[in-house]
Amino acid sequence: MRLSAALVRGGTSKCWIFHAPDPRRDDWEGVLVRAFGSADPRQIDGVGGATPTTSKAALVGPSAEPGVDVDYTFAQVGIGREVVEWGSNCGNCATAVGLHAVQSGLVAARDDATAVRIRNRNTGALLTVVVPTPGGAAPDGGDGMVPGVTGTGVPVTLSFVDPIGTTTGTLLPAGEPTTALRHGTAPATLVDAGTPAALVDAAALGLTGAEPADALADAIPPLTLLRRQAALAMGLVREDDPVSHAIPKIGVVGPPADYQATDGRTVRAADHDLSVRMLSMHSVHPAIGLTAAVAVAVAATTPGSVPAACPRHHVDPGRVRLGTPAGVVEVRLERDATGAVRAATLRRAARWIADAELNVPEPTLVPAEPVAPPVSA
Amino acid sequence: MRLSAALVRGGTSKCWIFHAPDPRRDDWEGVLVRAFGSADPRQIDGVGGATPTTSKAALVGPSAEPGVDVDYTFAQVGIGREVVEWGSNCGNCATAVGLHAVQSGLVAARDDATAVRIRNRNTGALLTVVVPTPGGAAPDGGDGMVPGVTGTGVPVTLSFVDPIGTTTGTLLPAGEPTTALRHGTAPATLVDAGTPAALVDAAALGLTGAEPADALADAIPPLTLLRRQAALAMGLVREDDPVSHAIPKIGVVGPPADYQATDGRTVRAADHDLSVRMLSMHSVHPAIGLTAAVAVAVAATTPGSVPAACPRHHVDPGRVRLGTPAGVVEVRLERDATGAVRAATLRRAARWIADAELNVPEPTLVPAEPVAPPVSA
Repeated sequence: MRLSAALVRGGTSKCWIFHAPDPRRDDWEGVLVRAFGSADPRQIDGVGGATPTTSKAALVGPSAEPGVDVDYTFAQVGIGREVVEWGSNCGNCATAVGLHAVQSGLVAARDDATAVRIRNRNTGALLTVVVPTPGGAAPDGGDGMVPGVTGTGVPVTLSFVDPIGTTTGTLLPAGEPTTALRHGTAPATLVDAGTPAALVDAAALGLTGAEPADALADAIPPLTLLRRQAALAMGLVREDDPVSHAIPKIGVVGPPADYQATDGRTVRAADHDLSVRMLSMHSVHPAIGLTAAVAVAVAATTPGSVPAACPRHHVDPGRVRLGTPAGVVEVRLERDATGAVRAATLRRAARWIADAELNVPEPTLVPAEPVAPPVSA
Repeated sequence: MRLSAALVRGGTSKCWIFHAPDPRRDDWEGVLVRAFGSADPRQIDGVGGATPTTSKAALVGPSAEPGVDVDYTFAQVGIGREVVEWGSNCGNCATAVGLHAVQSGLVAARDDATAVRIRNRNTGALLTVVVPTPGGAAPDGGDGMVPGVTGTGVPVTLSFVDPIGTTTGTLLPAGEPTTALRHGTAPATLVDAGTPAALVDAAALGLTGAEPADALADAIPPLTLLRRQAALAMGLVREDDPVSHAIPKIGVVGPPADYQATDGRTVRAADHDLSVRMLSMHSVHPAIGLTAAVAVAVAATTPGSVPAACPRHHVDPGRVRLGTPAGVVEVRLERDATGAVRAATLRRAARWIADAELNVPEPTLVPAEPVAPPVSA
């Protein structure tokens, strides 16, 4: 089976983009795991990169919805497991989708800059990516940079439109700005903005939130347990549902602090407003997922929350600077007259890496393990 | 800059293949590190896979040499360093080159099976890859498997033709089958067959040679020091030359033993003749490089060597079965009337993964670090 795709970097992720108007997940799940080589933990027999940020796909097509240009379904493709997680949105891939939509002609370029309006079909989120199009064309490269990547790309902006309550309908699905998880020993803010997220007080786990990523290894098991508690408290799952390691996003937050970024540069406390270390599945995220960045920024401007309680130098309702392992990620918040957040915007970079024709292996006739029928409740 | 390439899996490696008749290394070094995103340790801005087995390229073209079909230059592309190692051959990539040569029409397919004769330009080695071509065409897939990969591919054979002394001109460049490294405490066989290799007695490092790959972590620093001693003893470098982490290949060998392969299966002592754990640069190789497999097999049939001294059930001058972390790799040795090895053959699998057009970034105008002029001796 032959399949056309484009490989595009969006921020700190690599994303394989497939044209698939109105995709059926049942059809695509098998195709993606075989194209990526997911059966193998090193993804050696496919185009996957064997890490969460390099095992991502986007299914895109023109949108039939008024005011929307592109429909986008995000797929987090399994590594060593032949499954796809369909439950979340990926902001980095959305920037790749925005650039690709202009470069491939899916969206007509305007004269100076082109806004691509994208509906994420996993979560219903609406996103806008603004791509520079001098002379009516998107460039192959540019001088845009993001923390965590040494290379440059096309400078784009990514806005999450009306990011509040996309999944649950409300900013604080647990009904309170701080929820006492783990029998009261782990205060956390459970917020739905960009994505459902659980932001745990770093001090409750004996951390500062400004540690190097590899110093967080011991925190992964307790955070995995807290993620389940948070999912229940937010009404995302019921007791009988299987455990998700993707939703909500979870991490620790603390006050700003001088720390050393992964590339060795020192980040000053004065240059950010909050320390953040998030998980990506069972690993510490090398930077921060963009939907999570929106969640943290909105939470930080919500009175009574864990991040709002962190002492900091600047309090600006329109801007929150997050100190991540890779460096500082800034989120701008646009509010309406009532103070409600109507858009959250990040500066990003994206770059087209390759166009490809993939040779997708046929399905294996004998499954590696017997598949048991689902148990109904 | 746009560049056409094919991504082909050869055994346990992924290899990007570029058509480049008569390539100049100076021209290609910069292109490859930018195409792969080597400046970044995660290779997030390019097509590299950020591991030694997924950061490989092959430059191929028709050969002008009588009896040779394809010239092949191997490039081990840097990860987090903008350099290419040009010093070695890669057998896994050679199988990818063989399959690709037939699939791309560089070599005309015959009716049933097609032998592709390949000159490796890094080392001068001659290799033959036999590709099944039923009906005069190479298939897209097949049922071939290799230890360390769950997927299947086109079953091919890879032969190293006249593998003895390719680099140094002689089987035992140190002049003896066992050399006492580290002041006599580390007996090693220094052999040139397929590649220059140093095979250290596992017991000298307190090992068996049958350990899981991650149990070898403590052995990496001493083996790195022994590699330098071996390079000097084999005449590969002089005292003043810079240290190479690629040449010779180094690892430990021990007697066959029951052990658990990486995929969890038990490998029985009766099913292999020798335990082998090799390094790949500064990591334990997840299986074994094929040139190293040839070196170990030839050494195991050389009287007085470290591997020949390991007690084993079967001694067959025509076949050596190597117990690697991923499973058993069998090397068949073809000898002439004098007993000299004329060819070493391995069963492998290869699969075309993708054809691509790469968008290679322009060189950065300002180097990241000041470059000092070379110091002449």
